[in-house]
Amino acid sequence: MLLHHIAFTPSSRKVRMFLHEKGITVPMLDVADGFALSSDYTSRYPHRMVPMLELDDGTQIGEAMAICRYFETLHPDPPLMGTDPRDRATVEMWERRAYNEGMGAVEEVFRNSHPLMVDRGLPGTDQPVPQIPALVERGQARFARFLDKFDAQLAERHFVAGERFTVADIATLCVIDFGRWCQIEVPDRCTHLRRWYADVSARPGAAA
Amino acid sequence: MLLHHIAFTPSSRKVRMFLHEKGITVPMLDVADGFALSSDYTSRYPHRMVPMLELDDGTQIGEAMAICRYFETLHPDPPLMGTDPRDRATVEMWERRAYNEGMGAVEEVFRNSHPLMVDRGLPGTDQPVPQIPALVERGQARFARFLDKFDAQLAERHFVAGERFTVADIATLCVIDFGRWCQIEVPDRCTHLRRWYADVSARPGAAA
Repeated sequence: MLLHHIAFTPSSRKVRMFLHEKGITVPMLDVADGFALSSDYTSRYPHRMVPMLELDDGTQIGEAMAICRYFETLHPDPPLMGTDPRDRATVEMWERRAYNEGMGAVEEVFRNSHPLMVDRGLPGTDQPVPQIPALVERGQARFARFLDKFDAQLAERHFVAGERFTVADIATLCVIDFGRWCQIEVPDRCTHLRRWYADVSARPGAAA
Repeated sequence: MLLHHIAFTPSSRKVRMFLHEKGITVPMLDVADGFALSSDYTSRYPHRMVPMLELDDGTQIGEAMAICRYFETLHPDPPLMGTDPRDRATVEMWERRAYNEGMGAVEEVFRNSHPLMVDRGLPGTDQPVPQIPALVERGQARFARFLDKFDAQLAERHFVAGERFTVADIATLCVIDFGRWCQIEVPDRCTHLRRWYADVSARPGAAA
């Protein structure tokens, strides 16, 4: 198998950190060409996104969480996507919130403001998608709501989905570091989130 | 347990159809107050979205797919989220594409154009989020790409994620009917998607 990724993208990092926490090593290929996908990659993968796991039978699995699901099912220990029905649902709920509310917000800011993203307002297409400046302010306010929500959640638990480290923590860490890369820091008022961020950033997998 | 939903929302419908396909009956409460959430509901559930499953121990599970994961883990048969590692990953990949690329597109159109959605550009908050007219056109083009992608996928398989009906079909059906509700029909050129749509719409669960 081969994991196609781009070193600096948050979705690729999610999978690398997941694999590190599982103790799994997978061959990887960085498919960046500058700040875009290489034409060799897009000619073989029309969905035009990373990461993508290619299995030995040629199956292409895209979407970071689908790749994580593959490895979670193949190697259940340590569990990173929950154990019993309630726990699995809770982990998935918080991972989806991190993605929809956090990543969605930072993407609005990044793709609609960064000079490299001109006409790249959405991923996954080679059609020009113009930047919409109004989305920058909307994304910033949305991201602030996300930070406050996760700060409140972390007031009473060690990790995002409870007392165990899970993929919901990985997803949240990758969102927050993507925000920092876009010059949006976690504000001082979010004391619980900052405590959690220091803890989780210190895990060896955070550097994967 | 109690499933909080709103009859006409696509995310609520996803869970109802999932339960119907599983043969599970769950008590339900419609929490609509006109075209908004009832204040009784939002006072108890700060995430301000539907559906939400409340367990007997008080645990609140939001996000439609997290609720489906709960029931899939509790009642594995018939499997609607895949079986072996590759199959589970494939189902999740296509469900996520239906949500991110399809639902994301229709939401852009609906929330930024409908008179009932003024200042409700995003779900999950009581802060005013102004409509952004430029998102309507962007959403329409994005939805057209989604339809073509799923049409191509269905050219060689009965169902979205392969030869078995799964939650990826449920997610896709709910997106397409939400699009139709917004006056966006599946174009004639998408012959495979139209064949699939007729098949899946005829399942009893589609009316759940």
